Amino acid sequence: MSSSSAAAAAKPPMRDALVAAAFRLFLERGYEQTTVDDIVALAGVGRRSFFRYFPSKEDVVFPDHERCLSDMTAFLAAGGEEHEPVRRVCDAARLVLRMYAENPDFSVQRYRLTKKVPGLRAYELSVVWRYERALAEYLRGRFAGRPEGALRADVIAAAVVAAHNNALRSWLRSGGESDASATVDHALGYVQSAFGRPSVVVPGEQRSEDVIVLVSRRGAPLWRVVQELESALGRG
Amino acid sequence: MSSSSAAAAAKPPMRDALVAAAFRLFLERGYEQTTVDDIVALAGVGRRSFFRYFPSKEDVVFPDHERCLSDMTAFLAAGGEEHEPVRRVCDAARLVLRMYAENPDFSVQRYRLTKKVPGLRAYELSVVWRYERALAEYLRGRFAGRPEGALRADVIAAAVVAAHNNALRSWLRSGGESDASATVDHALGYVQSAFGRPSVVVPGEQRSEDVIVLVSRRGAPLWRVVQELESALGRG
Repeated sequence: MSSSSAAAAAKPPMRDALVAAAFRLFLERGYEQTTVDDIVALAGVGRRSFFRYFPSKEDVVFPDHERCLSDMTAFLAAGGEEHEPVRRVCDAARLVLRMYAENPDFSVQRYRLTKKVPGLRAYELSVVWRYERALAEYLRGRFAGRPEGALRADVIAAAVVAAHNNALRSWLRSGGESDASATVDHALGYVQSAFGRPSVVVPGEQRSEDVIVLVSRRGAPLWRVVQELESALGRG
Repeated sequence: MSSSSAAAAAKPPMRDALVAAAFRLFLERGYEQTTVDDIVALAGVGRRSFFRYFPSKEDVVFPDHERCLSDMTAFLAAGGEEHEPVRRVCDAARLVLRMYAENPDFSVQRYRLTKKVPGLRAYELSVVWRYERALAEYLRGRFAGRPEGALRADVIAAAVVAAHNNALRSWLRSGGESDASATVDHALGYVQSAFGRPSVVVPGEQRSEDVIVLVSRRGAPLWRVVQELESALGRG
């Protein structure tokens, strides 16, 4: 909560007033039927003030993505070799969820608006693409010199974004009522299990000294052996 | 080759003439500097003929995606329970590569054009999104009733598209000179190894009756156990 009030304090009040006016009009009249002139009239400011903060009408719908993209890039750049790369991009993706969850009502209103306006949907796809590229560039750096580093980076970045967005949409569809963090943790956990290496043993694992003996035919498909192994370990 | 000449024969010549005229002008003058009027003048047809085939100037840049999306949807719908789902979406993605590879010069020209024009980049993102949704919807159907079916479907569809596009871009960057099929097979193989189940035992596997005995502590991370298992099986 303190971080969200700090962020709010750092935002110029005029910018917030423009966003609030825009959304009131979008919801009352529809997005297409609202002009920048209508927005500035309701906010009580001039057109130039609008364009000082927002390059276009579309940008006022997504006022925090630029900040979030910068935060994500800075977060990734601040990581060192000690951070497991897949885990790091999952943590970076959580910054986007946090931005949405800071203001559930606004996020849910925008979600409903975006579904109805094709131009906003296109804008959103371009933003999602930029997040995905930020994650992929980081992974390409971490995987540099490894075989298939760029391919793995692109695939894992896309998987992280898809998992994040699956969780985000399910939270938005719930009207912002469900537990956003738990949903996204679960979704990202799936990606980490496919691509990452668990960095810790599950806490509370009491039987760590038990021994598993697995007997398998050499010709058995690897997936079947792993399935047996998972069920022996009780993680199937 | 016969399928590509059959496809060419099925296309109305006027549509092809419009595409050819548009690309000649885009390359000579630039995309933004070319109007629909310029295109129809060069092709020697009226404006209405243009809009009969293409809703907008952007659509003439990507004349085959609608057909390819229909082909992909039909291909997925034609699959039965006997098709391993991840393999099936990989095969569906190959249809897109085939469309690009049918006409390497055109594809490479378009790639260079799209990189320079932000509006075309946005259009392309929306097309990619539609392919991804087609794959995800198919997987959601196949995974229906399984835990996390929708999440897995979204993540795998995104991974397949990212792998396909990584291979496609590397082929386009080569000027259409590299082996497109081999590149995409390799990229999709990575996704299948992460999410799919190998459906066949490697041919020539002679020692199928040998037995592996793997002893592991129960508390060991699963990835480490799988690593040991892979190296025991000689597939690490």
